[in-house]
Amino acid sequence: MARNKQPEETVNLILDVSFRLFMEKGYEHTSIQDIIDHLGGLSKGAIYHHFKSKEDILVAVTDRMTAESNQMLAEIRDRADLDGKEKLKRIFKDSINRPVQNDIFTIAPDFHSNSKLLFSLLHDTIENVAPNYILPILRQGIADGSIETDYPEQLAELILLAANVWMNPMIFDSSEEESFRKFMILGQMLKGFGLDIMDSEMLERLTELTAIYRKNKG
Amino acid sequence: MARNKQPEETVNLILDVSFRLFMEKGYEHTSIQDIIDHLGGLSKGAIYHHFKSKEDILVAVTDRMTAESNQMLAEIRDRADLDGKEKLKRIFKDSINRPVQNDIFTIAPDFHSNSKLLFSLLHDTIENVAPNYILPILRQGIADGSIETDYPEQLAELILLAANVWMNPMIFDSSEEESFRKFMILGQMLKGFGLDIMDSEMLERLTELTAIYRKNKG
Repeated sequence: MARNKQPEETVNLILDVSFRLFMEKGYEHTSIQDIIDHLGGLSKGAIYHHFKSKEDILVAVTDRMTAESNQMLAEIRDRADLDGKEKLKRIFKDSINRPVQNDIFTIAPDFHSNSKLLFSLLHDTIENVAPNYILPILRQGIADGSIETDYPEQLAELILLAANVWMNPMIFDSSEEESFRKFMILGQMLKGFGLDIMDSEMLERLTELTAIYRKNKG
Repeated sequence: MARNKQPEETVNLILDVSFRLFMEKGYEHTSIQDIIDHLGGLSKGAIYHHFKSKEDILVAVTDRMTAESNQMLAEIRDRADLDGKEKLKRIFKDSINRPVQNDIFTIAPDFHSNSKLLFSLLHDTIENVAPNYILPILRQGIADGSIETDYPEQLAELILLAANVWMNPMIFDSSEEESFRKFMILGQMLKGFGLDIMDSEMLERLTELTAIYRKNKG
C-alpha cells in the first residue's frame, strides 16, 4: 500500500509547482523545463512518466479546480432551504465569486492553442455539470413551481453553453463592453424561461473578471 | 498568367476527389494515400505542396461549402420583400434544407479528433456569419418592429451558437429524441426574444438530418 503513496505525492508536487508557475508566468510562457527547474531534483523522466505534455499537466491542474467547483455545486444542489430558482441564482453568484476564478483568469491559457483543454471543458460542461448539478435543480424548480420548462435536460445544457462557454473570454475573446452585453442577453434569455435571476452584483463581478483576464493577456 | 491557373486546377482536383472519398468512405476512413490513388498520377509531393495534412484538406473542402452557404445567406439578407423576422425564419429553413447538408452529415467528420475543423467552424460562426449575415437582419428587424432586442450583436452570436454548434450532432452527439428536444428549447428561447419562427416542417427536416448522420456514423 505504501508504495502507491509516492506517485500521488509526486503528481501533486508537479501540479502545485506547475500551477504556481502558470500563475506567475502565464501558461503559454511556462516550459516543461521551467517546471523541472522548480521540482528540486526531480528528473525529466519522472515528469514524463506521469504526463505526456505540458497540455496534459494543464488538464490535470484544471481537473483539480473542477473537483473543487463540483464540490461547491453539490453543496448548493443539496441545500434544503432554497427552491429551484434560488439555487440556480446561488450557483451563478458563487461560481463567479470563487477566488479560484481570479486564478483561472490569471493563468489564462489560450484555448485556441490548447484544444485538449477546450474539449475537456466542453465535455465536462455537457456530460457532467449539466446532468449532475443543473438538471436536478431544474427538476426541483419544475416540482416546486419556480421554473417552467418541458425539457430540463436541454435547458441545463443551453444555459451552461451560454454561461460557461460563450461568456468565457478565454474561448470567445470579449471586451468589457461585450461582456456586459453578453450578460444582458443571457439575462433576457433566462427571463424567457421564467428565470429572472441575474442582478447588478453579478454584473460587477463579471466585469471585474473580464478586466483581470484582459490585463494578464495583454 | 497561364502559369497560375494550374495550381488552382490542381487544388480543385484534390478537393473534388477528397470530397467524393470523404462522402463514400467517411472522413475518418479516408487516408491521404486513398486520395493520391484517385488523383491519376499526381504525386504525394504535389498534394503536400498544397496541404499539410488530411485535416487541412477537410478544412478546404468545408471552406468551399461555407462559401456556398454564405452566398445563400447573402441572398436572403439582401431580399427586399421580407421583414427582419421573416428573413431569419427563411435562413433557418433554407440552411437545413440545402442538399449539401445531407453531404455534410454523410461525411460526418468527428470534430473531437479534428480540432482544426471545430475551431474553423466556431471562428466562422462568431467572426463571420454572426456580424455579416445575422446582425444586419436583426438590425432590420429592430427598425421594422418585427424583432425586439437592445443587443443585436450578442443575440446574433447566441442564436448561431445554439443553432450551429449546440444543435450540430457532429459536435454534440444527439439521438433523434434529443434533437427534437433541443429544437423545442431553441424555439422557446427564440420566442423569449419575440421570434416565433420555428415550425413543424423545420423539425421534420432536422429529424431527417439527424437520422442521416447517425446512420453514417453507426
